[in-house]
Amino acid sequence: MEAVKVPRGLAGVSVADTRISKSSADGSLVYRGYPIADLAANASFEETAYLVLNGKLPTRGELDSFASGIARRSSLDRRVFDIMGALGGGAHPIDAIRTGVSALGSIDAEQSIQDKEASIESKMPVLAANCLRVPKGEPPRLPGKTGGFADRLLQMLTPREASEFDRWVFERVLIFYMEHDMNASSFTVRVVASTLADPYAAASAGLASLKGPLHGGANEAAMEMLLRAKDPENAGPFVEATFREGRKLMGFGHRVYKQFDPRARLCKEYLGEMTKKRGDDRIYRLCDAIEREMWEKKKIPPNLDYYAAPIFYLLGIEVPLYTPIFAASRVFGWMAHYNEQVEENKLIRPDSTYVGHAGRSYVPIEKR
Amino acid sequence: MEAVKVPRGLAGVSVADTRISKSSADGSLVYRGYPIADLAANASFEETAYLVLNGKLPTRGELDSFASGIARRSSLDRRVFDIMGALGGGAHPIDAIRTGVSALGSIDAEQSIQDKEASIESKMPVLAANCLRVPKGEPPRLPGKTGGFADRLLQMLTPREASEFDRWVFERVLIFYMEHDMNASSFTVRVVASTLADPYAAASAGLASLKGPLHGGANEAAMEMLLRAKDPENAGPFVEATFREGRKLMGFGHRVYKQFDPRARLCKEYLGEMTKKRGDDRIYRLCDAIEREMWEKKKIPPNLDYYAAPIFYLLGIEVPLYTPIFAASRVFGWMAHYNEQVEENKLIRPDSTYVGHAGRSYVPIEKR
Repeated sequence: MEAVKVPRGLAGVSVADTRISKSSADGSLVYRGYPIADLAANASFEETAYLVLNGKLPTRGELDSFASGIARRSSLDRRVFDIMGALGGGAHPIDAIRTGVSALGSIDAEQSIQDKEASIESKMPVLAANCLRVPKGEPPRLPGKTGGFADRLLQMLTPREASEFDRWVFERVLIFYMEHDMNASSFTVRVVASTLADPYAAASAGLASLKGPLHGGANEAAMEMLLRAKDPENAGPFVEATFREGRKLMGFGHRVYKQFDPRARLCKEYLGEMTKKRGDDRIYRLCDAIEREMWEKKKIPPNLDYYAAPIFYLLGIEVPLYTPIFAASRVFGWMAHYNEQVEENKLIRPDSTYVGHAGRSYVPIEKR
Repeated sequence: MEAVKVPRGLAGVSVADTRISKSSADGSLVYRGYPIADLAANASFEETAYLVLNGKLPTRGELDSFASGIARRSSLDRRVFDIMGALGGGAHPIDAIRTGVSALGSIDAEQSIQDKEASIESKMPVLAANCLRVPKGEPPRLPGKTGGFADRLLQMLTPREASEFDRWVFERVLIFYMEHDMNASSFTVRVVASTLADPYAAASAGLASLKGPLHGGANEAAMEMLLRAKDPENAGPFVEATFREGRKLMGFGHRVYKQFDPRARLCKEYLGEMTKKRGDDRIYRLCDAIEREMWEKKKIPPNLDYYAAPIFYLLGIEVPLYTPIFAASRVFGWMAHYNEQVEENKLIRPDSTYVGHAGRSYVPIEKR
């Protein structure tokens, strides 16, 4: 039986039916049928997470039980911090989180698949917030007792006190990072889930794929670029120099969105509001100016990472924590994909086309 | 643009051109063009590993440098043992190895991709041999200074002294486990590699997929079944009872090999020889009798796991270490796939078909 050949990288190849989310070239994104702008305007992080996981918005009782379950499971076994600490101060943040989640696979005492998932979802923000500090030997920041998922995460990420509006914006950005149909890490999660491995194994593999610069790290790279560009007045020369040197502008372009990324548009609005309230709109004007240059020259729109980065920056979050924040939110999408894969499972086991040598015979080493 | 639909689980879908290995329905398996029986008859583990990684048999100089590089890198940082120890005695062996490899991603000081790969390949047998002991708090067994890869691994796995023939057989089994074209874990490794994540990330994801019972654990399950069946004379009733109760016989069937698995055939010969030398051929006769019953009733041949398991058993290796042994050998195949993926990389990022709700609007929680 001849294997069916498909485009490299499985580009445009549908590997699964999904009910979780859908992004479209026209700039639309829905989670479980709800437009992202509708959720951003109205829903909390927990409501959205419940929706992504369960396919429907929760009743009050369901929401309370879901939110308190997440809060309750967020305390991390001391051994996990010890393990992260053993990695040493040079540890890459994603390595530290992946090692922590991998260790939880044996340290956690959860029994059911659902409880294991809830445990990972609850502990991921604690791992994310501590993935820089704890390997350096600094004491962990533990989750507070009050506030929702987003507030508790933000409090661990930075000691800076955030305004109500800033906290609202941070929660929106987390909602945007939660899910995005068949991206590289969600596919990795599904491949591992298809062996019927447990959720810790699947989540640790998702984190492994986030380690790669073609999937993770984009929001950090965007911020580093903005910091290099510095000044709104410098946008034109900066973009020109970048192209002249054959380098790429970070935070632009998307496999799906060719006109605009709906999440980036909303984040841009929020960023404008945040800078207005601060009485200093330089970073907003810088972002806007580079965006205009890029559109004029290449017709490529900014993506979520481009406008999430300066928001995190204004919130006072260290740049190497930006991708860990992504992971703390995306894990809900990963678990939704895990469940969908396992529900009607078939092992994901593709074929390959052998194009190598044939008919070779062993030659003794003296005669090679 | 409509996504191309392909069979579920990507069955029969060629996702890559490969020069590494090829298994065929007629019972043939080649590594880099060399038939598996030719390699089993003539090559050492290191020669075969060099071949799988580099596409050619090594000269004496290349082999010496490769083998000594592996031996030299096999010492494990104390912190990795500490991390495995922190998991506690109930840790699943594959969790322990995965956590160790994940931690190495930050603990190892190797710089080049090639050195990182060599480090993982060298340390995997140490992790495999200690994945049960160290979490229980027992002292690690360290690699010896003499002997090749297979001998050093076997010495760590069991204190029992092995005959020259037994050691030769163990090395053959490792050669058989090294590589098998696009299996579930090698595909996982390629998916992660395609994000340009480092080899530690990719190997830890490969281990994550080995945690799943649809990919890992088969040789352990086969041995447990043989121990339950016990007696050659019991083979007929045992097989009948298994079918009557709607359970599966472990160690049978293969996605590719429908007539016979060439590796199982060779292992069966070795097992016959081992039992003859021991003057007790009961386990050989048991395996043979169940194989015959299964072929008569279902026309399904045994696979490698079925005959590797009793070989490991006669060598005195604890059953939960059988899948770790697989990992210690397969990691060479994983790294070959990592290299092949990265050499002509394209991010593996498939599409999905959205079949969920459309056009939903947020409803306030009081009205749900």
